[in-house]
Amino acid sequence: MTSDRYVVGVDFGTLSGRALVVRVADGTELGTGVSDYAHGVIDRVLPASGRALPPDWALQDPRDYVDVLRTAVPAAIADAGVDPREVIGIATDFTASTVLPTLTDGTPLCLLPEYADRPHAYPKLWKHHAAQDQAERINALAHQRGEPWIGRYGGKVSAEWQFAKGLQLLEEDPELYARAERWIEAADWIVWRLTGAENRGVCVAGYKGVHQDGAWPDEDYLAALHPGFGDFVTGKLAFPLSPQGARAGGLSAEAAAWTGLPAGIAVAVGNVDAHVTVPAAKALAPGRMVAIMGTSTCHVMNGEGPAEIPGMCGVVADGIVTGAWGYEAGQSGVGDIFAWFTETSLPASYTEEAARLGRSAHEHLSELAAGRRVGEHGLVALDWHNGNRSVLVDHELSGVIVGLTLATRPEDVYLALLEATAFGTRTIIEAFEAAGVPVEELVIAGGLLRNPLLMRIYADVTGKPLSVIGSEQGPALGSAIHAAVAADAYPDVHAASAAMGRVHSGAYLPDPERAAAYDALYAEYRRLHDHFGRGGSDVLHRLRRIRNEAQKA
Amino acid sequence: MTSDRYVVGVDFGTLSGRALVVRVADGTELGTGVSDYAHGVIDRVLPASGRALPPDWALQDPRDYVDVLRTAVPAAIADAGVDPREVIGIATDFTASTVLPTLTDGTPLCLLPEYADRPHAYPKLWKHHAAQDQAERINALAHQRGEPWIGRYGGKVSAEWQFAKGLQLLEEDPELYARAERWIEAADWIVWRLTGAENRGVCVAGYKGVHQDGAWPDEDYLAALHPGFGDFVTGKLAFPLSPQGARAGGLSAEAAAWTGLPAGIAVAVGNVDAHVTVPAAKALAPGRMVAIMGTSTCHVMNGEGPAEIPGMCGVVADGIVTGAWGYEAGQSGVGDIFAWFTETSLPASYTEEAARLGRSAHEHLSELAAGRRVGEHGLVALDWHNGNRSVLVDHELSGVIVGLTLATRPEDVYLALLEATAFGTRTIIEAFEAAGVPVEELVIAGGLLRNPLLMRIYADVTGKPLSVIGSEQGPALGSAIHAAVAADAYPDVHAASAAMGRVHSGAYLPDPERAAAYDALYAEYRRLHDHFGRGGSDVLHRLRRIRNEAQKA
Repeated sequence: MTSDRYVVGVDFGTLSGRALVVRVADGTELGTGVSDYAHGVIDRVLPASGRALPPDWALQDPRDYVDVLRTAVPAAIADAGVDPREVIGIATDFTASTVLPTLTDGTPLCLLPEYADRPHAYPKLWKHHAAQDQAERINALAHQRGEPWIGRYGGKVSAEWQFAKGLQLLEEDPELYARAERWIEAADWIVWRLTGAENRGVCVAGYKGVHQDGAWPDEDYLAALHPGFGDFVTGKLAFPLSPQGARAGGLSAEAAAWTGLPAGIAVAVGNVDAHVTVPAAKALAPGRMVAIMGTSTCHVMNGEGPAEIPGMCGVVADGIVTGAWGYEAGQSGVGDIFAWFTETSLPASYTEEAARLGRSAHEHLSELAAGRRVGEHGLVALDWHNGNRSVLVDHELSGVIVGLTLATRPEDVYLALLEATAFGTRTIIEAFEAAGVPVEELVIAGGLLRNPLLMRIYADVTGKPLSVIGSEQGPALGSAIHAAVAADAYPDVHAASAAMGRVHSGAYLPDPERAAAYDALYAEYRRLHDHFGRGGSDVLHRLRRIRNEAQKA
Repeated sequence: MTSDRYVVGVDFGTLSGRALVVRVADGTELGTGVSDYAHGVIDRVLPASGRALPPDWALQDPRDYVDVLRTAVPAAIADAGVDPREVIGIATDFTASTVLPTLTDGTPLCLLPEYADRPHAYPKLWKHHAAQDQAERINALAHQRGEPWIGRYGGKVSAEWQFAKGLQLLEEDPELYARAERWIEAADWIVWRLTGAENRGVCVAGYKGVHQDGAWPDEDYLAALHPGFGDFVTGKLAFPLSPQGARAGGLSAEAAAWTGLPAGIAVAVGNVDAHVTVPAAKALAPGRMVAIMGTSTCHVMNGEGPAEIPGMCGVVADGIVTGAWGYEAGQSGVGDIFAWFTETSLPASYTEEAARLGRSAHEHLSELAAGRRVGEHGLVALDWHNGNRSVLVDHELSGVIVGLTLATRPEDVYLALLEATAFGTRTIIEAFEAAGVPVEELVIAGGLLRNPLLMRIYADVTGKPLSVIGSEQGPALGSAIHAAVAADAYPDVHAASAAMGRVHSGAYLPDPERAAAYDALYAEYRRLHDHFGRGGSDVLHRLRRIRNEAQKA
């Protein structure tokens, strides 16, 4: 019997953490609580001293994470109206790679008074982009030495990940590097806070830490990167890895006091927000590509084997669920681009008309654009306003729009931008399929699923049936599913997903006529994509350099 | 003695006509009068019957032109406060090619009751674009037969001109073609109205009528275009051509009654608005390129010999002034593009801030953009939102912008659009110079000279000193100069221009540092220009076709 038992999933985002109380029996969501991070994203000055940060830095304060346990979890329990004694497990998911240096007891270096003014002592948020130089050397050396793991990351390890950020720490603050006894993802660190014992999961190790086939990059390779980096893995990283859905330990007395939950209940292994959404959307079967669409989009999908897909983020054995190869890809800008457009390019007449009709800017533009025939606007855009993650892995790219005329209206450009992101997703799907990894359907999660025009465009552009997750809290529901498995309420994540996940299958089906019309526009997108992104013209990189030099002057 | 004597210049624009009273002695502008065309641009339905016009048509009603003589001229005389008996001459300039079918007495066919419902009976305005098919056949046959005149038009005769529009008349309404005893530019027709006798000038015949080296296209060529077109020149067009500044005749009693001016005073030969601006700006010397910058830009300049410049509009002996070869080129969209941007892309916050500061949208954006270093926005645009006249001669092209990021602000895009039009002008200048026709300086006329940021950009981008005309009525002042010559107040247009024209020489000089920085951005513009405009990619044409088919569906 699983009735009258509950689990808690906690989703740690970029600006806040959110707890969700879920019934174990059927996944019903009973209550939520949110805690905004008091320090938010630290990207200008260190609050402790007012010390300025260089460009492209993005840090956080780990006390904000603990505050989520202290405030959002009790709030969710209260909101659900359940007896906390009936909660049998808790699980967490996190942005990644968000990574920090600690002592062997898990104390973050930034919380030691002597290091409060040292930027490198703080967690580096996923979008800290100041380790690009290190990433490029990591990649060049890996290709030069023929390291076996590099193909598992589409040929390029990201500047956002553990090794680039760790090497930056060594090169820029060697004293602090020496003091760092552990280098750990926040996804694992929060579990450590909950159980009192260090634990590391396969997901972050594989996707953000370059752990493949049971091994980390070897010492020779690391020493060749930097003489002081040879013991990075053995000294700060290596630890037995726990599988997805496993019990990391029991809730510590300290964490029980924070959360109001019973001490000793199951705490699941740490997870990544995108990956944990897959069981929430009942999309564990190979070929169901989950697109978590928000400011950016993350694509995660299980497949049968470890295909090397150029430009993907990574493929990891058991990375999403034990027994499958988990793939990840992504688009750097999606909802961010739509928001940029409505903020910078929507004329007053439209703003006023939308207000008069009681619509948001997005609703108003979508309504106007919905009547357009495919291609009627004469436009194609490249959705690179925030760079390109997959399949070009190039953050120096920028957006393009072609076909503007004096008759072009705001809703035309808006529609072209929606379509451009759909073309970007189709490009990723085609890269998967070209590498022999079939994509059967798209399963949409994230805030953008609330735009039906966007959903129809994705179905028509990709030619795939679209399912949508049946939860507004996909990651937290996914974590709750993991908590239930860790608490032995289900034999495995598959069974828990089947009982607790929620999806509306086939919510949007491609319209054959519009899909055919979109094939022609997509062909134009791909030509522009390859011209501007694959060396036909290097103008976007040159403009970026000109811009950066002019801004420095 | 020329004191106490006056001339009237009348400028017939697209939507209105404007008369200017000028002192003969020194060109002082004493008074103006304006008359809006009651029928404006007829591009949807014929007012007489409500009959719908096909796409791309643009007609006018010739009675509106006569109304300018009747209302604007007397208003200008009254405004000037001069005695009309002291007026010694009148001259006119017109948009071109604006062309109409008439009887041998000059009566427009559209004023015959039986033809009031026939679209082809009306004057076809310069921007009537429905004769593209005819223009293409005219050009193809000219190249096939090696017609000597085709190189004088940059290799392409425009769909806007007399022959394309005349062939369209023959093919689409042969009965009306047969009835048309004359086919005449409005520039010449208005002189006919003023004097009572048909007269044709070298300017429209050369630039809009394919008259070169004393000859029209020959009958064999015309008959090969269409068997019924062989006598087009001999039957409807041929007439002795009068030189620039000549007296076409004396003011008729009828026209004296319309205008309130003395009968018998000199009426000058008809002229084109752009070309007549050259003497007004004291820019008759070879190498002074006059750019008349408004919704679009027209470039006119005298040179020493008849160089064949690919993509120019035309070169005509004595076309601007007797004794020089007059060149013409143009940009299809300039001020139109800036207006499109402020109307469709300026967010409410900017509109409100501009209003608070008491600035127009253009002033506000220019103020914000003026602080930007060259290239700081990271953008390059192609200024083809209304097609490209020179040097690509392709109205099916459309606008492009590259380098957009989430940090791009409205003033960045606005600045990129200003720069794009300057790059377009530099492209034209370089085409002239590559053909051995040196351009020493730019002389700006037209409404856009009131934007100092734009003027600085043009100086920095072209690396040429910029002079600006000293009149807000450049074409009307130029016509007044022609009137003074026709009235024998000066021996020739050169002398009259020296005494009556006005220019601020060297008003803007290139800043060497910014000019060097713009060289890099211009190089990017030229690469994009050639890629999208010269066959590197045909995407803009394909998008146009897709758009047109979707709109038709």
